[in-house]
Amino acid sequence: MFIKTPAKGMRDILPRDLILRERVLDIIARVYRSYGFNRIETPCVEDINLLLGKEGGENEKLIFKILKRGEKLVDADNGEICDYGLRYDLTVPLTRYYTNNIGVLPTVFKAMQIGNVWRAERPQKGRFRQFMQCDIDIIGEESNLAETELICATTDALSAIGFKGFTVKVNDRRILKALALFAGFDENKHTDVFIALDKLDKIGEEGVRKELIDNNLDINCINKLMDATFVITKDKNPLEKAEKLLCDYLDVEVVDGLKEIFQTVMMVVNDCHVQFDMSLVRGMNYYTGTIFEIVMDGVGYSVAGGGRYDNLIGHFTGKSVAACGFSIGFERIINILMEQNAFDNDENSGIIYIISKNAPVDKISKVYLEAKEARIDGRKCSVMKKMKNFKLQLDEAVKDNYCEAFVLNEDGEIKHMILK
Amino acid sequence: MFIKTPAKGMRDILPRDLILRERVLDIIARVYRSYGFNRIETPCVEDINLLLGKEGGENEKLIFKILKRGEKLVDADNGEICDYGLRYDLTVPLTRYYTNNIGVLPTVFKAMQIGNVWRAERPQKGRFRQFMQCDIDIIGEESNLAETELICATTDALSAIGFKGFTVKVNDRRILKALALFAGFDENKHTDVFIALDKLDKIGEEGVRKELIDNNLDINCINKLMDATFVITKDKNPLEKAEKLLCDYLDVEVVDGLKEIFQTVMMVVNDCHVQFDMSLVRGMNYYTGTIFEIVMDGVGYSVAGGGRYDNLIGHFTGKSVAACGFSIGFERIINILMEQNAFDNDENSGIIYIISKNAPVDKISKVYLEAKEARIDGRKCSVMKKMKNFKLQLDEAVKDNYCEAFVLNEDGEIKHMILK
Repeated sequence: MFIKTPAKGMRDILPRDLILRERVLDIIARVYRSYGFNRIETPCVEDINLLLGKEGGENEKLIFKILKRGEKLVDADNGEICDYGLRYDLTVPLTRYYTNNIGVLPTVFKAMQIGNVWRAERPQKGRFRQFMQCDIDIIGEESNLAETELICATTDALSAIGFKGFTVKVNDRRILKALALFAGFDENKHTDVFIALDKLDKIGEEGVRKELIDNNLDINCINKLMDATFVITKDKNPLEKAEKLLCDYLDVEVVDGLKEIFQTVMMVVNDCHVQFDMSLVRGMNYYTGTIFEIVMDGVGYSVAGGGRYDNLIGHFTGKSVAACGFSIGFERIINILMEQNAFDNDENSGIIYIISKNAPVDKISKVYLEAKEARIDGRKCSVMKKMKNFKLQLDEAVKDNYCEAFVLNEDGEIKHMILK
Repeated sequence: MFIKTPAKGMRDILPRDLILRERVLDIIARVYRSYGFNRIETPCVEDINLLLGKEGGENEKLIFKILKRGEKLVDADNGEICDYGLRYDLTVPLTRYYTNNIGVLPTVFKAMQIGNVWRAERPQKGRFRQFMQCDIDIIGEESNLAETELICATTDALSAIGFKGFTVKVNDRRILKALALFAGFDENKHTDVFIALDKLDKIGEEGVRKELIDNNLDINCINKLMDATFVITKDKNPLEKAEKLLCDYLDVEVVDGLKEIFQTVMMVVNDCHVQFDMSLVRGMNYYTGTIFEIVMDGVGYSVAGGGRYDNLIGHFTGKSVAACGFSIGFERIINILMEQNAFDNDENSGIIYIISKNAPVDKISKVYLEAKEARIDGRKCSVMKKMKNFKLQLDEAVKDNYCEAFVLNEDGEIKHMILK
C-alpha cells in the first residue's frame, strides 16, 4: 500500500502558497531585525522531560513522543520507552537555549524565532498539527521598555505586511490576582478563576458563572468577582477604575507601568489603539505580569499574543531572569491574506526555452548561454524538452508565470513567442 | 532536574551562525528560483510505512519513530506502537507529495526543497542528527536536459555563494551495470559489487578486492572487474574507453547522452570541469541512470550529489515517471565557510538608545519616534534600559554591531556617543 496523503492533520504546501508564506516571513524577519532581534534556532526535537515540565499545562497530552532507539529501547524495562518529543511551542526551548548558551549571550538578549511546532490536537478546519510560529522575546529586561519594544515591533511587522487598524488589548496577571483577592478567593483557586474568566467573550457572563459554580467556588466570591469585572469593563476608563477598586490588593507601580506603555505605544504606533481589558487572561501558566494581544479591524480574533514570564527561566535554573515575549499567529495571518487574495504573484515573468527533439547539441549550448544571461538580469528561465502536447506545455508555462518562449527547432532555428 | 543541553547529536544555533546560514540559504533559493524551481514543503512527520519502504535502505535503522497517541496507543495490541516518523531525506517525501498533488502540478515539475531531515546516527564531529538539506528535482523530464539544468543550477548556486573551481564527476548506473555484466557477475550480485566499488577512493584497490572476496564473489569476475575499472580510470579519455570496452553490454545512447551533458555544461558553466568517474556509485538503491557529484578546489569531499531515479515514483504508484535530482550538502558548505571565516557580519551598523532610570515618559516616547525614523532608513535600532554596569552594556552593544548610542538621562537630556 502506497501512502500518498500527508500525516493526519498535516499538509503539503503548494508552490503558490509557499511564495506567500516566504514573502510574509521575510517581511516579519526584516522588521524584527530592524528592532535588534537576533534570530536563533533550536532543534525541533527536545528531551521529553523538558517538554513534560509542568509549565506546558494542557500541552502535555498533545506532544508527539519519540521512541527510544536500538539498545536504549531494549533496555527500557522501566517502562519509559520515549526519550524525546517534538516541541509544542518555542518558549520552553528558548528557556533551555538561554540557559545553555548564557555565557555567550548579552545581558539583555533579544531573540527572534521562526519555526514549526507540533501539537497532536484533533484536526479541524484551518488548524494543523504542524504549524509555524514567529516569536520575539526579550530576556533580561525588567522594565516595561521590553513590553513597549515588543508591541512596537509586532504592530510594525503587521503594518509592513499590509494590515491596518490595530487594537492592543493589555492586562496584567497582577491585576487579575488583585481582582481575585478582592473577590475573596483563596490563592489556590486563582487558576480556576482565571481559566473561567478567560472564556468571558466566548461563553458570556452566565457561562463564566456556571463554570465557577461547577468548580465549587463560593457564590459570594463569584458575585463579587463578576460585579467588579463588569464595573471595571463598563467604565469609560477601565484601568483607572481597576486601580481605584482594587487599590488594597494592587501595587501602584503595576498600573503606572501599564500607563507608561499605553502612552508610549499610542504616540509611536500609527493607527493603533491600546486598551486595558480586564477579561484578558491568556492560557499559559507561566505569565507573571503584563499580558497582551492584538486584534485588527475586520478580523474577529487575535492575531498575536504574549506577555511577561519572569519566573520561567528561574523556575528551571534557580536564578531568576526577567523575560517577556510576543508571538505572531503566523497561520492566522496567512489565512487572512489567502482569504483576501492579497499578495498576488507579481514575480518577474520568466522565459521558457523549449528544445525540440534532435536539435543540434551546439545550438542547445547556445540556448543555455542565452538563459544564463537572462538569469543574470534577474529573470526566471527554464530550459525544457518540447513536449508532444505542445499546446499543454505552453499553457502550463503561462500558468507558471512564463511570458516568453524561445523554441529551438530540429534544424537549429530559434522561434520567439510571446505567451501573455 | 533541568535539561539545558539540546538532544544528543543536535544543536542550538547561535545568532552569528544563523546569519551565515540564512544568507547562504537566501542565495541558493534565489539562484534556484532563477532556474524556474518552485519551492514546496512537506511535513517533517510522515507515515512510518512510507519511511520504512525498502527504498530507504540503511536509513531505516536511523529513523526517529513517533509513538501512537491516546486511544490509538492503547489499541496497539498488534505490537505496532509507532504510526509516524521524522523524515530522513527529502526525496521520499517528494515522491509522496508529487503523487498526492499530481492533479495541480505541471507535466514537468521543477521542485525546490529546503528543510531539515533527521537521522539517529552515532554523533560525531561535524555531523548532526538534525541537519538541513537543499534539494532540486525535475520530475517528468526524460531527456538529459534535466541533468544539464540541475548541474548548471547547482554550480551556479555554489558560485553565487563564492566558491570556485568545480569538478563535476559523472557516472551512469547503466555503465556500472555493463561493467558488472562484462566482469561476469550475476545481476543479483550487482548491488554488492557497487557497494564495494563505491569505497575505492577510501579503502583502495586492495580493500575493494578484499570486500568482494569476503562477499564470496567469484575471483575471476573480481579480477576482470578490477582490471577493467583500472583500464578505464587510467585512460586519458575514460568515457570513450568504457564505451569501447563495455560495448557489448551497453546501449550506445547512454554514452552519447553523457557526452551531450559534458559538452553543454563545459560550454555554459565557467571554471568547471566535467569528468567521467567509473568508480562513482552513490549509495541509494533508487538511482537508475546518471549519477553525479561536485567537488571543489581545496575541498577534500563532495559538496553536492544526485542522480536519476526514474523508477522511484512508479515503484510507489505503478505509473512510471522520470525523475532526476541534485542535493547541496548544506552543512558541509556552512562548515567550509565557517572554517574560511568567510561572510563576516557586514550588516548595517545599528543605533542603541539607552534610557536612564526615571527618565521622563514623554522623552522616552520621543526616543521611540527617533528609533522609528532610523528603522525606516534601514538601520537596526534597539531601545534599552540603562544597566548598572554601563561599560558592559556598551561593550555588548559593540559586539552586537551597534556603532552609535543615544543616552537619555534622568533630566531628559540626550547624549550622543560613537561606539566604534
